[in-house]
Amino acid sequence: MKIGIIGGAGYTAGELLRILLRHPQVEIAYVHSNSNAHKPIYEVHQDLIGETELHFTDEISQAVDVVFLCVGHGEAVKFLEKHTLGSHIKIIDLSQDHRLGKLDWVYGLPELNKPAIQQARFIANPGCFATCIELALLPLAKEHLLNDEIHISGTTGSTGAGQKPTETTHFSWRNNNLSVYKAFEHQHLAEITQSIRQLQPNFNHDINFIPYRGNFTRGILASVYLHFDATIEQARAIYQSYYENEPFVVLSSANPDLKQVINTNKCILYLEKHKNKLLIISLIDNLTKGASGQAVQNMNLLFGLEETTGLLLKPSAF
Amino acid sequence: MKIGIIGGAGYTAGELLRILLRHPQVEIAYVHSNSNAHKPIYEVHQDLIGETELHFTDEISQAVDVVFLCVGHGEAVKFLEKHTLGSHIKIIDLSQDHRLGKLDWVYGLPELNKPAIQQARFIANPGCFATCIELALLPLAKEHLLNDEIHISGTTGSTGAGQKPTETTHFSWRNNNLSVYKAFEHQHLAEITQSIRQLQPNFNHDINFIPYRGNFTRGILASVYLHFDATIEQARAIYQSYYENEPFVVLSSANPDLKQVINTNKCILYLEKHKNKLLIISLIDNLTKGASGQAVQNMNLLFGLEETTGLLLKPSAF
Amino acid sequence: MKIGIIGGAGYTAGELLRILLRHPQVEIAYVHSNSNAHKPIYEVHQDLIGETELHFTDEISQAVDVVFLCVGHGEAVKFLEKHTLGSHIKIIDLSQDHRLGKLDWVYGLPELNKPAIQQARFIANPGCFATCIELALLPLAKEHLLNDEIHISGTTGSTGAGQKPTETTHFSWRNNNLSVYKAFEHQHLAEITQSIRQLQPNFNHDINFIPYRGNFTRGILASVYLHFDATIEQARAIYQSYYENEPFVVLSSANPDLKQVINTNKCILYLEKHKNKLLIISLIDNLTKGASGQAVQNMNLLFGLEETTGLLLKPSAF
Amino acid sequence: MKIGIIGGAGYTAGELLRILLRHPQVEIAYVHSNSNAHKPIYEVHQDLIGETELHFTDEISQAVDVVFLCVGHGEAVKFLEKHTLGSHIKIIDLSQDHRLGKLDWVYGLPELNKPAIQQARFIANPGCFATCIELALLPLAKEHLLNDEIHISGTTGSTGAGQKPTETTHFSWRNNNLSVYKAFEHQHLAEITQSIRQLQPNFNHDINFIPYRGNFTRGILASVYLHFDATIEQARAIYQSYYENEPFVVLSSANPDLKQVINTNKCILYLEKHKNKLLIISLIDNLTKGASGQAVQNMNLLFGLEETTGLLLKPSAF
Repeated sequence: MKIGIIGGAGYTAGELLRILLRHPQVEIAYVHSNSNAHKPIYEVHQDLIGETELHFTDEISQAVDVVFLCVGHGEAVKFLEKHTLGSHIKIIDLSQDHRLGKLDWVYGLPELNKPAIQQARFIANPGCFATCIELALLPLAKEHLLNDEIHISGTTGSTGAGQKPTETTHFSWRNNNLSVYKAFEHQHLAEITQSIRQLQPNFNHDINFIPYRGNFTRGILASVYLHFDATIEQARAIYQSYYENEPFVVLSSANPDLKQVINTNKCILYLEKHKNKLLIISLIDNLTKGASGQAVQNMNLLFGLEETTGLLLKPSAF
Repeated sequence: MKIGIIGGAGYTAGELLRILLRHPQVEIAYVHSNSNAHKPIYEVHQDLIGETELHFTDEISQAVDVVFLCVGHGEAVKFLEKHTLGSHIKIIDLSQDHRLGKLDWVYGLPELNKPAIQQARFIANPGCFATCIELALLPLAKEHLLNDEIHISGTTGSTGAGQKPTETTHFSWRNNNLSVYKAFEHQHLAEITQSIRQLQPNFNHDINFIPYRGNFTRGILASVYLHFDATIEQARAIYQSYYENEPFVVLSSANPDLKQVINTNKCILYLEKHKNKLLIISLIDNLTKGASGQAVQNMNLLFGLEETTGLLLKPSAF
Repeated sequence: MKIGIIGGAGYTAGELLRILLRHPQVEIAYVHSNSNAHKPIYEVHQDLIGETELHFTDEISQAVDVVFLCVGHGEAVKFLEKHTLGSHIKIIDLSQDHRLGKLDWVYGLPELNKPAIQQARFIANPGCFATCIELALLPLAKEHLLNDEIHISGTTGSTGAGQKPTETTHFSWRNNNLSVYKAFEHQHLAEITQSIRQLQPNFNHDINFIPYRGNFTRGILASVYLHFDATIEQARAIYQSYYENEPFVVLSSANPDLKQVINTNKCILYLEKHKNKLLIISLIDNLTKGASGQAVQNMNLLFGLEETTGLLLKPSAF
Repeated sequence: MKIGIIGGAGYTAGELLRILLRHPQVEIAYVHSNSNAHKPIYEVHQDLIGETELHFTDEISQAVDVVFLCVGHGEAVKFLEKHTLGSHIKIIDLSQDHRLGKLDWVYGLPELNKPAIQQARFIANPGCFATCIELALLPLAKEHLLNDEIHISGTTGSTGAGQKPTETTHFSWRNNNLSVYKAFEHQHLAEITQSIRQLQPNFNHDINFIPYRGNFTRGILASVYLHFDATIEQARAIYQSYYENEPFVVLSSANPDLKQVINTNKCILYLEKHKNKLLIISLIDNLTKGASGQAVQNMNLLFGLEETTGLLLKPSAF
């Protein structure tokens, strides 16, 4: 299987390369980057030194089976307007450009849309916070149990903010720091609502979401709670049933910590019941399950491979 | 003014010493620690090298004006059972032993109980999360505006967990990590409820509190939100009025970050309105305003000093 | 190939499990831990949740091909005194017990002793600092160019200090901190000298080594410099020649940073010449190339597998 | 005493403001910043919220006693070319522009040049690494004991790299990372040599200095070693004698860690002897003793104040 990457210099492209270089069925045909054309890839993604002699290119070949769009938000649409990719090429867009209500595009959350993904040509890869939060809520949505406001706090690592140095990614600022941003108004709320309504069409409640900038590089931890009348055992049964055949979602019976998922494609979910509230803690690595790992999971599904191919990654653990 | 410290080897005692060594009206008469008796203080609180030649002692002198209890929870009651302190000695207990419904003890949150503190002999110094959250809620309680559930997420630094090395304070575990603990059941909820009811006696709603272990050493950031019908301007007016004469509480018109308060006795509050929700972000340093700084603030009030004496600390900022 | 692990609860055992669970030719027969017998492995190595249902055992089976000793220093010798392993079982000892002058044991640095390892039954896996520093020096030793004092500063992550919580691994102490320990007297100097003399028997100079405790979890960066009369090009040629067939050692032409090797089995080396000094910067991950990854590399060599089998790990990069 | 600050938006200006706002004898007349003119100071130095209502200005008043130049390297000379400051105004330049061989300027290391500083009009405030390393070496220089090569490794916090976001101050890069820069060629070596020769004019040996970028925000730890024939007791006596009257230099008998000096103006020195080598570990906070704290120390000396006025800062400790 030959693949091309557009926007090859950013964080999601780097993570995609780390995974695909080890994927047993993939040949990387080209990595496109206008600004880095002709440089060795390991000059930008420096951990890849010794692993590949590939260079960035500014040319786009049609001789591939799938193209990953790793460009910034808004740039994926522009790219597809400027370039015509042959109809034999499948496209996985990691930007947010095609996630909301695009007819030709399938929202690429395998735990929601696996059959559709397997038949698709165009995949809109979900957002990182969206993935983490949807995996916490979809089992309840499927049972039409989201009947009140939802309360979420979630903290993301700095790689979620991308490669460009800014004030809030300056080490002197961010180290040992914590801050809230886009409270109640994070752009992923639209995706989350769309996915919930796919399973529970009448859902019409506020999702109160407080996102935090954490002082770590990788990972998202979200705590979600809501009114829930049934027992904790019933809750667990709902989640077990929903995720029965999902290789990357793990229900933990112990309270988890973020580093359990780092450098893996796993999502760990953990449930507690307190009075009439159900608490769901959800953990992912924003660069793997929250971006490039999920993109590879989608690619595997698109091409009929085992879903976990190339994605059984050694956790970094520490 | 002569002071004594009981439980001198722990984190709150160390911070108290850092402050009191620079306090212009204080003489440190003794620092008690059974396990460290006769050692120089700077062998335990190593940053104090070059600042004091004081040694720990295992004797307790009556020739002091105030004693700070910096022992563990449960140990303050035991200490006072074993030792009789002369009636000329005031006591400030930094443990949680006397915070809840103790008749002789005043709950030492100056922004709630200043006149009572000024007349008191026994002060129960508030908990760190309790301080941070109460300062976010009391202005609304005073106006009897807490009429629905309250939603809180809050993250604390590792010094809140004390000096004893444990699994969750091991650097290899905690660095770059995040986790939830005691969701909905943090022990400070009782204090918080007690303080709210002091101002709004009919308060009877759930306080949903998700505490997090953060990967930083100092500081607490809490996000609090609740149903609120009035405007953001009205909210700001309520907070401005409540804190008008409080030297350590600052209302910020910009979204703050945790490091703005570190190594200071300040609490920064910030308000946003989203649809019918009011969001209050509250920041303190858990060791200063959340513990030892507040204890000194209480001492200043007990002895008729300017409230800020010795507490206008240089922020560390980074 | 069936393997057993002794001392299964520590950091090196955890890392070994992370690697071996994905190794295509390995079956984990047992993981021994007296203190954790009968617990699921993922209760201790929590990132392994969802990856294995293996439990710790307190029994030692003879039905294995190789045993990894992951016990503490001094415990490996004791273990082998107490237990007789059948002569069909190869042993890889990750402790320091058999590294110095033990006749039956091969010092398991593949870049020094590959042919001997391939024939060995008993492997003494090198120390983490020793691996990092020897890889920086051995090419010069082979050319008998170590003819003056050697100057080294090296910084290690906290996982090097093991799992037991201590004062210097307490997050509140170690976060944002730095300190020197065992200056000029680190225990790995003996291994380093032994390996140098294997290639340059007359070596008889001081190795001045300042080890630092870094505030990160994984990795070692060592800077080594010494008097060197030839040119930088000659130096590079010496290193290129020495490492020509070594899959895990990479010579970088750009100044590297520690995170380029984290979660990989690579060693990156970088050379600079300044006046008459040659500077060699050497980077490894202390848990992989510095411990468990190298143990698996040795296992691959012991059993005639491709040296890199199971060791082409995705870097964590961030 | 009225002071003005030029280049008010950078890190050293922020730290200067944190100190001077609490200095009992200082009135801040103006804080100059072209790019931030008319903004409140706390919009840039956000920790100063609630502490000052001062605004940046783009005007320069002559009605001050001293001006601090906090501009970038090269900009101080340009500023003084463009602006004429009245002869009643003393100048403390925190940039490197006037440190080397400028006749009218005194190199402002009080532990080297106190009498000259007290008489000076123009002070060149030393570099951060230079301060840390000179304090480690000057007692030996005074005894003419620097008679061989000197070996130094030193690690600096990210604030040393300034406020502008760059690749090597990006949190995603720097967090948990370590790297060498400017090995053997750091620009502070010229200052260090100049100061050594002031005490030991014949000094003519290599100073081998490996600087590291650390993953912390504040602080410098340098390890210095060299050939030394006398005993450790003699070494300690030399240092005790040299620093006898220096309020900010502390000789520790225990191996120190970096956080002991953070947010203080102290330098901690620690000595060990190993065979014929003397090891000196030196610690400062790069923003206080390494920059703005030292500038205030110089100001105190210039104006005949107690040297420690405003500089007995509470350590942050954690």
